[in-house]
Amino acid sequence: VGAPALAFFPVSWRGDRLVLLDQRRLPGEEVYLECRTWPEVADAIRTLAVRGAPAIGVAAAFGVALAALASPARDRESLLADLETAIAGLAKTRPTAVNLFWALDRMRRSARSDPALGPAELRAALAREAGAIFEEDVASNRRLGAHGAELVPAGARILTHCNAGGLATAGYGTALGIVRGAVEAGRRPFVWVDETRPVLQGARLTAWELAREGIPHAVIADVAAASTMARGEVDLVVVGADRIARNGDTANKIGTYGVAVLARHHGIPFYVAAPFSTIDPAIPDGAAIPIEERDPREVQELAGRRITPAGSPARNPAFDVTPAALITAIVTERGVHRPPYHFQA
Amino acid sequence: VGAPALAFFPVSWRGDRLVLLDQRRLPGEEVYLECRTWPEVADAIRTLAVRGAPAIGVAAAFGVALAALASPARDRESLLADLETAIAGLAKTRPTAVNLFWALDRMRRSARSDPALGPAELRAALAREAGAIFEEDVASNRRLGAHGAELVPAGARILTHCNAGGLATAGYGTALGIVRGAVEAGRRPFVWVDETRPVLQGARLTAWELAREGIPHAVIADVAAASTMARGEVDLVVVGADRIARNGDTANKIGTYGVAVLARHHGIPFYVAAPFSTIDPAIPDGAAIPIEERDPREVQELAGRRITPAGSPARNPAFDVTPAALITAIVTERGVHRPPYHFQA
Repeated sequence: VGAPALAFFPVSWRGDRLVLLDQRRLPGEEVYLECRTWPEVADAIRTLAVRGAPAIGVAAAFGVALAALASPARDRESLLADLETAIAGLAKTRPTAVNLFWALDRMRRSARSDPALGPAELRAALAREAGAIFEEDVASNRRLGAHGAELVPAGARILTHCNAGGLATAGYGTALGIVRGAVEAGRRPFVWVDETRPVLQGARLTAWELAREGIPHAVIADVAAASTMARGEVDLVVVGADRIARNGDTANKIGTYGVAVLARHHGIPFYVAAPFSTIDPAIPDGAAIPIEERDPREVQELAGRRITPAGSPARNPAFDVTPAALITAIVTERGVHRPPYHFQA
Repeated sequence: VGAPALAFFPVSWRGDRLVLLDQRRLPGEEVYLECRTWPEVADAIRTLAVRGAPAIGVAAAFGVALAALASPARDRESLLADLETAIAGLAKTRPTAVNLFWALDRMRRSARSDPALGPAELRAALAREAGAIFEEDVASNRRLGAHGAELVPAGARILTHCNAGGLATAGYGTALGIVRGAVEAGRRPFVWVDETRPVLQGARLTAWELAREGIPHAVIADVAAASTMARGEVDLVVVGADRIARNGDTANKIGTYGVAVLARHHGIPFYVAAPFSTIDPAIPDGAAIPIEERDPREVQELAGRRITPAGSPARNPAFDVTPAALITAIVTERGVHRPPYHFQA
């Protein structure tokens, strides 16, 4: 499959296994995780070894391909039944990013598309389909990056939240795809990296990608975004998305909504970058997007050490919803979408 | 000196030494630090063993008292010269909280108030003056807590940022003084505790105080404040202050300004709680308040472990300024002040 033009390989397929850059151990260690079965892929998704909506979709697609390879089924119906087990298991890993369900649906449709295929042909077809999802994701990212670069003035200071980079996709990135597109277009952007508690995807992952590629940036605590805007040091905000409703309401990493409110207060454009596979036309608005609540220990602990008192509970929603009214534009591989948004399948 | 009605003693005077609850080691360990010289007090302030604007003022006052006790001066003028050295050294510890300068000025005025006092009498007078600052701070907190409790509806869910509690004062607290006042008035508040990166004063200190006293609360990552408000689960915000300008603009822990913008967006009242010693009538507005920039390692490291890549710089402003226009009311020991604010000495 096509390699993204990155200095690292977040997700790669080796014919009999899926190799994932273990994002839990970045930036300290660059360790690759080999998944040979779909439950290993499901575990990697659940524990955030691989994260980011597009990357989750791609990994899950390869998980289905691995299930097909590992299935002992000798007939088509048995193989399809084994695939349904894998699809159901992979679907239970994380609820918010729609790319997961989109990729699983596409793998299911692919499996059922040609009743003439026997088990061996089906196994090969599913590996090809997952590869196509991978390649299309990279291509979509590159196209959306080029569209988005048009929104970036020369020397712009771009604030981003979480990691919507090469690590969150098959490669290149969505929000960081726009940053990369702007760099390629000679715009010399500077990036403010929100650290993004509790899992620190900004401090650990976005900073790592930008440092690897020599893109100028600085990490700030999430709480410093407001005063950085007030000082006039932010020209635009670009974030990724985990699910976009038909009306443009966007679920993304917890804290995104707050950044959008701050951007509006300061008159700063707020852009969402995502491949079209992140749009869920079945959902009318953000209220219908399921929000994952993760283990409170992600808030109570840091680097494995308890930071809160033993008697203190914590709440840990992993995502929030930014209403379409706060989003200046949504950038996909199809172009720059302006409000009012009316997305269709 | 009068003991605050708390289950712990953040700052206490033992006649020849100042004993500080070492806040760097909370909530894991309850360790007390003994300061016998003013440079030890200065170091405790600089390294955040003691922090919070009113507590810094009280500690610095006792630092001057320690300087008087330790001075070998045999005449009044030599003693006053030694005091000026201590005052200058203590003044250099942290720039933003005005209570520090207020307390140092008050100690200087006390030292110079009666030219008839000899060195021995002056040493005793300065220890008494620092004790008076301590007692007045506790009394002010209690009064402002009672005034502020009137703003808290029964069952209110109060969001607070950083620690403006007993730990940030001589005892009782300012923002948490209002929470304690509301508890005493039978209002049964619940507290959302912003963890307050990078130094985690919310997760470590506010949660510790509330857990110690059995006040219901939950810790959230700072980034979760926005969606907690959007869900309708925050009835009011109460924060402390490090310096309040004549027009009501308020410097407080980094992130406070963002919370104020969010509160305004959601129509939630936003209150500042501080003793009158936090008001700096010499400063017309927030633009003139010096903002401390702390070591970027506070952002780059967590619990002593590097979290960002080696090649990633960080910015670390310790405070931000909330414009008066976003502040519903400022609560001091004198009452509830409503805009427009025109504070005078």
